[in-house]
Amino acid sequence: MSITFSTTTDLYSEVQQFYAGQMQKLDGGDFEGYAATFTADGEFSHTPGSKPARTRTGIIDSLHEFHRRFENDPVQRRHWFNMISLNPRSDGTIHATFYALVITTRPGGKPDMAPHCVVRDVLVRQESGLLNRSRRVEHDQLR
Amino acid sequence: MSITFSTTTDLYSEVQQFYAGQMQKLDGGDFEGYAATFTADGEFSHTPGSKPARTRTGIIDSLHEFHRRFENDPVQRRHWFNMISLNPRSDGTIHATFYALVITTRPGGKPDMAPHCVVRDVLVRQESGLLNRSRRVEHDQLR
Amino acid sequence: MSITFSTTTDLYSEVQQFYAGQMQKLDGGDFEGYAATFTADGEFSHTPGSKPARTRTGIIDSLHEFHRRFENDPVQRRHWFNMISLNPRSDGTIHATFYALVITTRPGGKPDMAPHCVVRDVLVRQESGLLNRSRRVEHDQLR
Repeated sequence: MSITFSTTTDLYSEVQQFYAGQMQKLDGGDFEGYAATFTADGEFSHTPGSKPARTRTGIIDSLHEFHRRFENDPVQRRHWFNMISLNPRSDGTIHATFYALVITTRPGGKPDMAPHCVVRDVLVRQESGLLNRSRRVEHDQLR
Repeated sequence: MSITFSTTTDLYSEVQQFYAGQMQKLDGGDFEGYAATFTADGEFSHTPGSKPARTRTGIIDSLHEFHRRFENDPVQRRHWFNMISLNPRSDGTIHATFYALVITTRPGGKPDMAPHCVVRDVLVRQESGLLNRSRRVEHDQLR
Repeated sequence: MSITFSTTTDLYSEVQQFYAGQMQKLDGGDFEGYAATFTADGEFSHTPGSKPARTRTGIIDSLHEFHRRFENDPVQRRHWFNMISLNPRSDGTIHATFYALVITTRPGGKPDMAPHCVVRDVLVRQESGLLNRSRRVEHDQLR
């Protein structure tokens, strides 16, 4: 059962709830679930300099490839989003700019911080709720 | 004077406000205030493998015991919650799953990160507002 | 184009959106834009023990002076706010108490944490939206 914000028009909360569900899926290894939060023609650019992943199948493939580096590494990754700034446009899209930090923990270890990023999303509303039409991740250490 | 969201039905914001007040109390050493954010029969499981604390008195006792380790340690602990996913159930309870990080600072020192956790709350609404019926903390480093 | 929450009375979301825009300006080096989020007589106390900056011009000057230390340091600073507790008063002001963490990244480097702070804001509503009448920053390592 998923939450429905039928009694509120508060977009900001809806986006926060959407992001929480989306990233808990990714951090839990549910790549299919993560890809399903994008539109059918969605575009996900997570690594500067490499071609963005396109379509849900393309995003799933890209995630499997990216995560191959963790195959023998029992790391738990957690994506934190913060300072979300929303900009709804007249064409119905919602542009979101926010900060993201990956916090990693290995068994018995202390949390570590992976890159700090600025993320630029274009969200659209479809019957099922919000979806990412695109996501572009910029890494602070590559600026 | 506490905030009342009487003009809004936005549950997500209400939960964020509730958590902020709750954890600022805990980080400020107000164990009684923290325990009062639980129901009378509330259950708080903060350390995997040990028995959960039950009832407000039990929670206060458990916090005093846990904090004994900081008796001669002037550490300032701060609990950060993020990526809150809410799931209101038909029985009126609200299930919340979110990330938590403890950030600690010692006098003259830099902030350090204590465990990264996933927290599972069951919230209920009583006349005074939201309360925790239960809280279960899972530590990433113990997975 | 800036977001307007005309269809909602949810203050909490409005404050989060306000803070995101405000701090993305500061982290982007737009000191004038940051100062414009304060009232004309606004007061900004960011360093304990030194005199608060007053008026928008005073805040801009203070930021230029503070940032002189980063002149030859290509650091990217990011301000994260969390656990925001709002307390609207009967005089129309909104008192906010929250946690703040500065996360810094240097080219090719890993993120680092600068001070953890508790911030105490007084917000007021003017025609243009929310503004800071005052901001007081307390550093955990100086407690």
